[in-house]
Amino acid sequence: MNYLSRDETICAVATGSSISAIAVIRVSGPKAIKITNSVFSKNILNKNTHTIHFGNIIEKNKIIDEVLVSIFKEGKSYTGEETTEISCHGSVYITKKIMEILVNNGCRSANAGEFTLRAFKNGKLDLSQAESVADLIASENKSAHQTAINQLRGGFSNQLQNLRTQLIEFASLVELELDFSEEDVEFADKNKFLNLLNKIKEELKKLIDSFKLGNAIKNGIPVAIIGAPNSGKSTLLNALLNEDKAIVSEIEGTTRDIIEDNINIEGVQFRFIDTAGIRKTNNKIEKIGIDKALENAKKSNLVLYVVDVKNNVIKQQEDLKKLKNKISGKIITVFNKTDLIKMQTKKISNAIYISAKNKTGINDLKQKLIASVNTSQILSDDTIITNIRHFEELQLSLSEINTIIEGIKTNLTGDLLAVNIRQALYHLGSITGEITSENLLDNIFGKFCIGK
Amino acid sequence: MNYLSRDETICAVATGSSISAIAVIRVSGPKAIKITNSVFSKNILNKNTHTIHFGNIIEKNKIIDEVLVSIFKEGKSYTGEETTEISCHGSVYITKKIMEILVNNGCRSANAGEFTLRAFKNGKLDLSQAESVADLIASENKSAHQTAINQLRGGFSNQLQNLRTQLIEFASLVELELDFSEEDVEFADKNKFLNLLNKIKEELKKLIDSFKLGNAIKNGIPVAIIGAPNSGKSTLLNALLNEDKAIVSEIEGTTRDIIEDNINIEGVQFRFIDTAGIRKTNNKIEKIGIDKALENAKKSNLVLYVVDVKNNVIKQQEDLKKLKNKISGKIITVFNKTDLIKMQTKKISNAIYISAKNKTGINDLKQKLIASVNTSQILSDDTIITNIRHFEELQLSLSEINTIIEGIKTNLTGDLLAVNIRQALYHLGSITGEITSENLLDNIFGKFCIGK
Repeated sequence: MNYLSRDETICAVATGSSISAIAVIRVSGPKAIKITNSVFSKNILNKNTHTIHFGNIIEKNKIIDEVLVSIFKEGKSYTGEETTEISCHGSVYITKKIMEILVNNGCRSANAGEFTLRAFKNGKLDLSQAESVADLIASENKSAHQTAINQLRGGFSNQLQNLRTQLIEFASLVELELDFSEEDVEFADKNKFLNLLNKIKEELKKLIDSFKLGNAIKNGIPVAIIGAPNSGKSTLLNALLNEDKAIVSEIEGTTRDIIEDNINIEGVQFRFIDTAGIRKTNNKIEKIGIDKALENAKKSNLVLYVVDVKNNVIKQQEDLKKLKNKISGKIITVFNKTDLIKMQTKKISNAIYISAKNKTGINDLKQKLIASVNTSQILSDDTIITNIRHFEELQLSLSEINTIIEGIKTNLTGDLLAVNIRQALYHLGSITGEITSENLLDNIFGKFCIGK
Repeated sequence: MNYLSRDETICAVATGSSISAIAVIRVSGPKAIKITNSVFSKNILNKNTHTIHFGNIIEKNKIIDEVLVSIFKEGKSYTGEETTEISCHGSVYITKKIMEILVNNGCRSANAGEFTLRAFKNGKLDLSQAESVADLIASENKSAHQTAINQLRGGFSNQLQNLRTQLIEFASLVELELDFSEEDVEFADKNKFLNLLNKIKEELKKLIDSFKLGNAIKNGIPVAIIGAPNSGKSTLLNALLNEDKAIVSEIEGTTRDIIEDNINIEGVQFRFIDTAGIRKTNNKIEKIGIDKALENAKKSNLVLYVVDVKNNVIKQQEDLKKLKNKISGKIITVFNKTDLIKMQTKKISNAIYISAKNKTGINDLKQKLIASVNTSQILSDDTIITNIRHFEELQLSLSEINTIIEGIKTNLTGDLLAVNIRQALYHLGSITGEITSENLLDNIFGKFCIGK
């Protein structure tokens, strides 16, 4: 990709591709206004920024469309460059035609993400903010949207800037120390250094820890559905999804593959994972299924343990106890098939009673699920890392900080510590894009949609 | 539909529904600016028309998105009403959310076509122009686009206005005549009246005649592919479409159903119709197919007669002669399977030589097709009727004019003629919407997309 040529004026359709009332074509670059002017029926060369002009797009004296042209002067636009937006009728033919006319008049058709890349290169956004734009556009639920908009608003960037400032402050102290080394001045205040580093370390750890939740928000919070064979796990999944996704039968061991699907409960995305019933079996394929079920239960934030109330409830509860040490997430016990028995008045507190078949109790279960997730954290303004690239850079930075802490404890000299400090700064800087490579940029912006 | 309540402020997503860089939400009505202001981070109450403002959409102190708000004051917008356009990130979640916030703050979600309906009601467009907006959005090729934009630009409306003026002039002359009737003044200049009416009649006929072409432009110009069995008609269709739509085999009579598809050649849409091979057969189903083939050939503007050069060419040409009186459209003879024989140097002029199998000669055929259509008419600024409603109203109007002409010839009195004149005016007026009913409007605007 030829990202470097910011001399070029680029254009792209920025709105959805389906037939619609209106479509918007974005033009950005040093000749945006001049080129737009050359295909437009009115003179817009000396108009103010942030003004809108009604007129026609013209080609060879033929009117192609009646449009509105918005003008954004250099420094006042999304990209930071001179920009126009042409709002035309949302016909496939018209948008294609106007793009063709723009290209014939000196524009280049933009690459994916190229507008946002230019915004980044022109200092309108840092890299983590630019990445959040793609997340924001892809956001399908309240929590994913909230984390993306917070990141776009620069919350994360500020926190990183703060960490960098602290590290640089530390570096200057170490350097000061180095200057005095010839005079054999002792490490004046080792504890002060360590306190500063530990503070940085804690902040890094908090960000890194947020990734588990952030990743869950982006991809759905994993909820494994486990239980004895034929306890109704697949029926429960279908009831939650309100469709017939998993095959259900009365034959034990029907489900072998892991069946997944997402549902949105009060703005939080959950990813439900239906698993094979857990029992001793000689069937090889089923065994693999059961192993996978346990593995999934281990990795999930939440586990629904489905108990068949028509069966030996005591045994099922004992089985759960055996599993407990293998599971790290929170377990919700779900008593199923309540339609088949006369319910005792005294229910086990904290458990949920449902009939997956009749879809009773499903709302109680949903409420329980949402209560089990720290939604206050999701919906707060606290930074939540959702991007694996950021997560990895933070981990690398943390590892450098740990090395520095060890170094100070073992009285390493400042010039040796400086290497690690630089590395730690490097990793933080690469999140916001203060340190980047063209490869990295290609990677990030290549995933954007055209027109952004 | 509650189209009458123009007191309400309406809102709709006006751009395509897919995930995209940006989406635009349109708000129109007496409170458009006030409601937008109430959900926006900046005060836009006293801003100028045609200005753009960057800020945030806010709900309960939470930022929903960073957006651009465009302001159009009353009388200066598409609808003629106070309007705002909110340009936000093209996420499904965000557009839904902003729509929800607008509705919670007093907007109503717009019906299909309601913005354009309001533009019509506020006199910004007449009805035929409003209808052309839908055609323009749906236009997929140059010719459909050209006819729609001409109509939107008011060419047709002016022509109708002109016809109406002439008719009203005629009416006043007749009325004058009436006033003098008591004094037994003879029909002063019968021929002058007839000349005026004939001029109107010719104009109406020209418009009515243009509908055949207009309809073809909208739906594709029909081209029937006929020929003997196994002459390669389906292979030719596939070659033209560049895909495998029709089943081909060496067995005579493979194609029985009519297979259709559209292709765009140099901006003109053609609708190709593959038909059963024409031969004597006892197979009942095939016979129906052959009858259909002939029927299609009869109705089509163009007919491709495919001749298998490996077979008895003389006989095939004689068969064509027999068909000629049944076909009204232009016939292009296509000699197929040229890959199988050594071609004679002397070709029949005006015929096309192809190998559908090897896709040679297909471009020659396309050029021949485009040359066979009066593209100069399509791409001129002459009015072409594409709307069946207009076509019908013009026909009704013409019928009244014919009655008037007859009436004058038979010396009918002016008061009797006046009934027909009013009817003729009524039908012309209903095209531009000077005469309308709510039912008609429902019918027209219900077919629009939301947000237009």
